[in-house]
This record gives sequence, C-alpha cells and structure tokens, in this order.
Amino acid sequence: MTGHVVGVDIGGTNLRVALANRNGKIVAKWSGSTTDNSSPKAVVQLIRNAVDHLLREAGASSQSLLAVAAGAPGVTDRTNGVVFATSYLKGWKNVPLAALLRAALHIPAVVENDVKLAAIGESWKGAARGVQNFVFLAIGTGIAAGVVVNGQLFHGPQWIAGEVGYLIVPGTPESPAGRAVPGSLESVIGGEGIRQRWRRICKNGQRNLSATEIFGLAMTGDRLANRVLGQSARILGYAIHNMSAVLNSSLFVLGGGVGMHKALLTTTRRVLQPYTQPSRPKIITSALGADAQLIGAVRLALDTAES
Amino acid sequence: MTGHVVGVDIGGTNLRVALANRNGKIVAKWSGSTTDNSSPKAVVQLIRNAVDHLLREAGASSQSLLAVAAGAPGVTDRTNGVVFATSYLKGWKNVPLAALLRAALHIPAVVENDVKLAAIGESWKGAARGVQNFVFLAIGTGIAAGVVVNGQLFHGPQWIAGEVGYLIVPGTPESPAGRAVPGSLESVIGGEGIRQRWRRICKNGQRNLSATEIFGLAMTGDRLANRVLGQSARILGYAIHNMSAVLNSSLFVLGGGVGMHKALLTTTRRVLQPYTQPSRPKIITSALGADAQLIGAVRLALDTAES
Repeated sequence: MTGHVVGVDIGGTNLRVALANRNGKIVAKWSGSTTDNSSPKAVVQLIRNAVDHLLREAGASSQSLLAVAAGAPGVTDRTNGVVFATSYLKGWKNVPLAALLRAALHIPAVVENDVKLAAIGESWKGAARGVQNFVFLAIGTGIAAGVVVNGQLFHGPQWIAGEVGYLIVPGTPESPAGRAVPGSLESVIGGEGIRQRWRRICKNGQRNLSATEIFGLAMTGDRLANRVLGQSARILGYAIHNMSAVLNSSLFVLGGGVGMHKALLTTTRRVLQPYTQPSRPKIITSALGADAQLIGAVRLALDTAES
Repeated sequence: MTGHVVGVDIGGTNLRVALANRNGKIVAKWSGSTTDNSSPKAVVQLIRNAVDHLLREAGASSQSLLAVAAGAPGVTDRTNGVVFATSYLKGWKNVPLAALLRAALHIPAVVENDVKLAAIGESWKGAARGVQNFVFLAIGTGIAAGVVVNGQLFHGPQWIAGEVGYLIVPGTPESPAGRAVPGSLESVIGGEGIRQRWRRICKNGQRNLSATEIFGLAMTGDRLANRVLGQSARILGYAIHNMSAVLNSSLFVLGGGVGMHKALLTTTRRVLQPYTQPSRPKIITSALGADAQLIGAVRLALDTAES
C-alpha cells in the first residue's frame, strides 16, 4: 500500500497538519499559528506550505498524495465541502474549503466539523473503538457533540445535529441565545462560563483561574471550587441524561480541555448514578485528547482516498 | 395487486385492527376492549377473531393475507419481534408477540412500538409526508417520541431511543425517576401531570377536569387555566428545543390526546418564537390523530409483505 493522505485540524488559533501513510500511521506532523492571518486564503496557503514541508520530512513526493480531509470549528456541509460559519475564525462565512484545498493540493478534498472529526477519531482509534452508537461531547470554550448512530456520524438536515451548547436544563439560562452568543449550556459549563461563576464567588487572590484550575482546586478540597465543580457536573449530567433519552446512546466520550478533567468525570458519574431510567449511559474521557480531530481527519482522508 | 395486510394497534384499554388491500387502502376496521383480559394470549386470540371477522366483512379469504404488523405501548424489539415491557398492559414482559401472531395467523408478522408506528403513519399519509427528518411527539397519559432520521425510524441500540418522557428541563422535577413511575417531563406535562397541577390551584367546583378540558377552559380566558397552559407550553417548548438541538429535526408533529390540543400548539409556538439558535423547528399537530398508529401498522405490514 503506497501513497499518503493529509489530515488537517483548523482551530481558532492553531493549525495542525498530519501526513499519514495508507495504513493510517502518522509519519510526520506540523503545527502553526493562525492568529496573524486566519482568512481562508491564508489558512489554505499555510496548509499547502505545511504539506510541502511534511513531504520533505517524510522523504515523499507530492505525487504520493491521495486525499486531504480538514476539520473546521463551525457548521460544515460535508457534501458540498463548505464551512458555513464559525465564530472562531474571522471572516469565515460560506467558505468553499474543499474546493480551495483541491485547487491548492490537486487531490480529492473533504471537510467536516472538527467535533464530528474527533468522534470519527475516537471511533477509529480511541475510546469508542467498535461502538456503533455513542456521543463525543467536546467541552472547551465551546460545547458541541459528534453523534454516531448505527456506526455513522449523524449530521442532521442542516448539518447542525449535535449543537448541544444550546441545551436548556435546570441550572442554565432559560432565555433564548442570540446569534454569536453562547448557548444556554455553553454559557454555564463552557470554559468561560465556569470561570465567570468562579469569579462571582471566589476570594480575591484566586480570581483569575481557568476552569481546569478551578476543578484542580476542587480536588484539593476547596469548598467554593467544589461548589462550582458540583454545579457544573450536575448541569452536565442533565445534558447527558437528556441526550441519552433522545438517542439511547450507551456511551458518552468527554473531550475538550474542560471535558477531559478527571474531577468533572468522577463528579458527573456520581450525579448520574441514580438516574437509571430509561437507561444509564457509560461516561468516559477521550483516549486521544487533543489529537482526536487530527486522527479523525486522517481517517476521513483515507476513506476519501478509498472511495 | 391482490392480497391483504393486517394492521393492529394494541392500546392500554383498546384494541384496533384494520384490514387493508395492497394499495394500503383500509377496507375494514374493527375495535374492541382489552380491559377484561389483556394477557398476550387473550390479545392474540382477540386479534385472530377480529381478522376472521374483517375478512368476512370484506368478502376476502384468509389465503389472501400477506402480513400483519402490530404496535404495542412499550419498549419493543422489532428485529426479534419481542415486546420487552409495557406499563399499560398487565403481565406483558418479554412477550414474543411476532411469533404469537405468526402462529395464530400463519403469515409473516412484525411488531413495533406504537409511537414509532404513529411516526411511520404520519410519514406515509399524515403531517410529515416526504419529510426525511422529523420527530413525532405523542403526549397523552404518557410521553414518547418516534424519531425519524434520514427517512428511517431511529430505534437506538436498546430500542429505547425517543423515551423523552424522561427529559429534565426547567420546570420538571430534577430527581431521578424510578421504575414504573413517570419520567420528569411526563410527570408534569403528561395528561395526569397537568390534571394534578390544575387540582393544586383550581377552585373547588372545577377540580376534576382533564388536561384537554383545562386547555379548553384556558381558551375561554380563564386565568388559572391559562397559567397551567402557559407552564405546560413552556416546558414542552424546552423539550422540543433540546430535541431539536440534538437531532437538528426541522419538524415536530404533536400527537396524542393532550399533544393535539390547539391551545397547546399555539402557545408552544409562541414560547419558541424567540429561540432561533441553533435552529427553530416547525411544530404542527398530527394529521391522522388517533389513527396514526393503525395507519403506520398497515404501512409496516405492507413493507413486510413486500420484503
């Protein structure tokens, strides 16, 4: 099996590119910043340069390239290869990213939402290997889910299935979210929501902690930090319970900087312990961590090469 | 096209059987009570007698029968033809209903959850004709959903996808539901939950109103009844909003005695008007009403005959 594929993870501030062989083994990785210029044109140029660099590093030629798959942090139409919108990248609106990548790299290209790519990654090489029905739930600055049903990613008719940052449960705001503002769930248990809750109750010396630092503090026994942790876990528990009631997903894989914290996992499991009806899903953390998207991109590129 | 199929709707107190021709036209209908004896054996015997009666009525022979499909009010494994459990029929636990029907009628038999059958019915001849992604939401004594994604009913790995009577949203109890007790959502906006809320606030003379009578009273301008209607619509609105965020379903079809009330529809639409993110689903009421299950059963029987 000769040839290579390219996996790309476009983040809000970072760009990561991987070159993999046809067995899916990553042979070289590159990462860079998009903070200077994150326009679609600049990002595609960065990807092109990164691919050249990776090919040299791996001693491979551009003729060996078979396909590229890229993940973007926003609503993405995989069929037409368009990133509709993302609040993380300035000026990205209806970007025909697949076409831009095809033109830049002269190979088949496919694009996908980054959280959905992470679900593919976990399903292929991570915590959900072989599981036909599961939810990858990313909790970082934002909150979104990659929903896998019957072994397939579920996108919904407008490509926005799994936009669970908008869930309304006890403890979240009940008022409607506007455009470009966080949804109810995200506003309280996204990284920024947790920080803000902490700032309202903490003592002055510890005002500027991140969500994971607050959870870490809770693990040392800090009473106020434990209160924030407990509230976050309860709200997350209701969200998972509701998704499980709708989808009957037996497994939830928590990812993202906030979602992967051990204290959040154990506290959420404890919260959900008595909720046995209609079923109690298993909750685990991502096995691939920050690499989930990139590995999912490699898998999608391999599928594209094979199809 | 010759031959007939049988559609069966097994309710908590009523049994309905339809004989349809191969074009799906119902040529004769029968209904009876299951209150005297609702054991699986008794129900199958009733179905057998009803089919004999319907064949005579239609002037058809039992040789013309091609298939039967039956809906049951509980968790149903369509692949193995087993009704796992239902709180509406005494003694029904792991009932191999498809095998019992096959043995009684000597034709291919398939079983399905009744709300999922109603979704099939609405998709075939009702309010969701041609819609590839929608949710049929039944609100009567119980609450459950039939979820259709990409034109297919979604069952979940344990056949309990759509058990949304357990959803937890602002205004519902947050405590876990035990076995054989209503879920959080059902306990407040199922028919009995609405009655109970009304009894706590109403004047004595009107204590014993049903949910639909309370909604009817609200339409006449009664302040207390309007309060119950408004609360019910708000809670229903959150539940629909949450399901929509998970599934990206663009259409919700409300069915069931409570769900089909016009006042609930218009009030819920008003509640959800400002909730535009991630998307605002369309909400309509069932076009088939109480016949949705039976018509869905006929469709499933036709599919079974054709396969």
